[in-house]
Amino acid sequence: MFNRCEKIWINVNCATMDPNIEAPYGGLKDQAVGVRDGQIVAIAPMSGLDLKAVTAELIDARGGWMTPGLIDAHTHLVYAGNRAEEFEQRLLGVSYAEIARQGGGILSTVNATRNATVEELVELSQPRLQALMAEGVTTVEIKSGYGLSLAAELNMLRAAKQLAEQNPVRVSTTLLGAHALPPEFRDDAEGYIDLVCHELIPAAAREGLADAVDVFCESIAFTPAQCDRVFRAACEHGLGIHAHAEQLSNLHGAELAARYGAWSADHLEWLDEAGVKAMAGQGTVATLLPGAFYFLRETKLPPIELLRNYRVPMAIATDLNPGSSPLASLQLMMNMACTLFRLTPEEALNGVTRHGAQALGSAADIGMLREGMLADMVLWDIAHPAELACQFGVNPIRQRIVAGEVTHV
Amino acid sequence: MFNRCEKIWINVNCATMDPNIEAPYGGLKDQAVGVRDGQIVAIAPMSGLDLKAVTAELIDARGGWMTPGLIDAHTHLVYAGNRAEEFEQRLLGVSYAEIARQGGGILSTVNATRNATVEELVELSQPRLQALMAEGVTTVEIKSGYGLSLAAELNMLRAAKQLAEQNPVRVSTTLLGAHALPPEFRDDAEGYIDLVCHELIPAAAREGLADAVDVFCESIAFTPAQCDRVFRAACEHGLGIHAHAEQLSNLHGAELAARYGAWSADHLEWLDEAGVKAMAGQGTVATLLPGAFYFLRETKLPPIELLRNYRVPMAIATDLNPGSSPLASLQLMMNMACTLFRLTPEEALNGVTRHGAQALGSAADIGMLREGMLADMVLWDIAHPAELACQFGVNPIRQRIVAGEVTHV
Ligand SMILES: [Zn+2]
Ligand SMILES: [Zn+2]
Repeated sequence: MFNRCEKIWINVNCATMDPNIEAPYGGLKDQAVGVRDGQIVAIAPMSGLDLKAVTAELIDARGGWMTPGLIDAHTHLVYAGNRAEEFEQRLLGVSYAEIARQGGGILSTVNATRNATVEELVELSQPRLQALMAEGVTTVEIKSGYGLSLAAELNMLRAAKQLAEQNPVRVSTTLLGAHALPPEFRDDAEGYIDLVCHELIPAAAREGLADAVDVFCESIAFTPAQCDRVFRAACEHGLGIHAHAEQLSNLHGAELAARYGAWSADHLEWLDEAGVKAMAGQGTVATLLPGAFYFLRETKLPPIELLRNYRVPMAIATDLNPGSSPLASLQLMMNMACTLFRLTPEEALNGVTRHGAQALGSAADIGMLREGMLADMVLWDIAHPAELACQFGVNPIRQRIVAGEVTHV
Repeated sequence: MFNRCEKIWINVNCATMDPNIEAPYGGLKDQAVGVRDGQIVAIAPMSGLDLKAVTAELIDARGGWMTPGLIDAHTHLVYAGNRAEEFEQRLLGVSYAEIARQGGGILSTVNATRNATVEELVELSQPRLQALMAEGVTTVEIKSGYGLSLAAELNMLRAAKQLAEQNPVRVSTTLLGAHALPPEFRDDAEGYIDLVCHELIPAAAREGLADAVDVFCESIAFTPAQCDRVFRAACEHGLGIHAHAEQLSNLHGAELAARYGAWSADHLEWLDEAGVKAMAGQGTVATLLPGAFYFLRETKLPPIELLRNYRVPMAIATDLNPGSSPLASLQLMMNMACTLFRLTPEEALNGVTRHGAQALGSAADIGMLREGMLADMVLWDIAHPAELACQFGVNPIRQRIVAGEVTHV
């Protein structure tokens, strides 16, 4: 099986994350990993490899650990402006109401984003994407949601698509039209949801700009009935579904999303057992966002034990955004998932690989080291996979590999 | 004053952190910063600079912000081994007692460190130092404390000195012999303190290996009476004083350290008003360690309001160590200081510059942009200094400058 490979990584310890392999992390030591046409075509013990019989390029991992490429399954990384001065004002004691009166909060990001061209959005977002890639991210989900008009939402998605073209990274795009109520619709949420369902979703689908649709189901955003309308429109257009749900209260948004076969429900601090059960029944992934929990100083933890008991897959993502999680680091999120949410390092690594893939409807292609999967992989200078979640700051990446190509970021 | 400079940074916005300059961050816009012989010799408005009259090398900052080089005033970054598997075991439900019985905890780091040569310690610690330098750190404090014997403690300090020689960074070394009780002295804490006072401190002083002495004053470590003996020995040898104090309980260690004119008392979650007052009276810096607070999931906050009221300078440091703060990122600590401790971004930046310098007894040389200070500086791609504490993950560093030289890390 190695004789038709283009490249073979030798002397690799694999954290395959394949649940069919019983060892922790789906661990296989002393392996060779062969790649052809951007896919993994062989994983087998070194002992069975006849190096003289292969013509492939050999890359000696010298006992390093290989994992699937990391997947950040929830980001808002395309935006303009920043909220540093607002952050400072809050710490200086200025009230939320006063900041809002000054045009702060999410609408300041909306204004800056609406005023930017696609090219400007790409340029401003590039360093954020770069930071994620430098940590080993090979697939990133990017949401719209700071445009809140037909033109500006589509421009955000176009910027996400351009970032994908210009960088060695896969991008999953999500239309989050129902993120906040734009000023033009201040007293007409239903009218805005009409726009989302009848214009934004059809246009994004028609132009192939969105893989999925997302909503913010919360008392400060949209009601379950409004989200239901958005989900229905998403289904009609064959798009995947995500939901921001149960972050600040329990409106049963996760259960609603699960009924539509959602890929993921995200945040979930207030999720109850009925919600967990509904998600389990539909295979909906729980995407946990410890960065927002940390940055907002939340104290209500997501129901990790219930999610474990019902075997709901848990993804971990950055929620990278300027207001509530300005943290462009998926490695930090792995540490926070363990430290704040008490996940195990293996659960954290699953959260940014296999379960991250599942949260993007891509479990057949990415998220594991397995023959037939895309050759998105990271080679690490670590002695044990737990190090990826235990420590932070020293980035132990040695090689980042996308579709079998070693990339430099 | 610019006519004798070797280099001049032009079009710089300076966050001087000089309290004599009234604007936030000691801010001065559109400046020129001139350097000679490793020192800052001129800071003045661009409008007064006649570019034709100067012969110096010009570096155009194009409106970037310059801050003093960052100072990490509390680290244990020299060590061998790692505690990732212990971290994992704890999250899998294994008890502390069981982990200790298996040789885990601090003594596992002591064993690994004792078994390493100076060269091995340097090699293992280099990536951690590198990570700090890449974020703009130009001065770092490094403690011993995992040797706990004469030979092993001195070796740790020698490793710290070698790191300083091999890297463009200043290192302040601290003998932390009184960190934990070594197994050889299990039932004889006084005997170990004898060793610290009569052998370790004199030897470290004689060989010029330590700038200061530190203790861990806590029920699980050493009593105030034992720390008192260590402080007295430190004074006799003319060394500076730090103290790990009031982290888990209030033993009045900070007050004790202040009575000896300590440079800093560190952690301080349980510090009371009397302790704050004592520190204020002696100019002892409060070095806050939000990484350990985060990693240990503490809930008791240090008394920030009292420290403000009594004008005790607050430094911010990583406490980088394998057990309770495996976080090699001072930028992250700035964010955590704001997010978890509610410091303002300006307090956070002061904490890693001017107050960090004061915590190392080096306030005359580093920590501000001011004529006569050493030219340790960082040029950032930011629009406002608050960005350094508000966001994390995208490292906005453009140039790191040590003694007037642009360094590449
Ligand atoms: Zn989000
Ligand atoms: Zn410490």
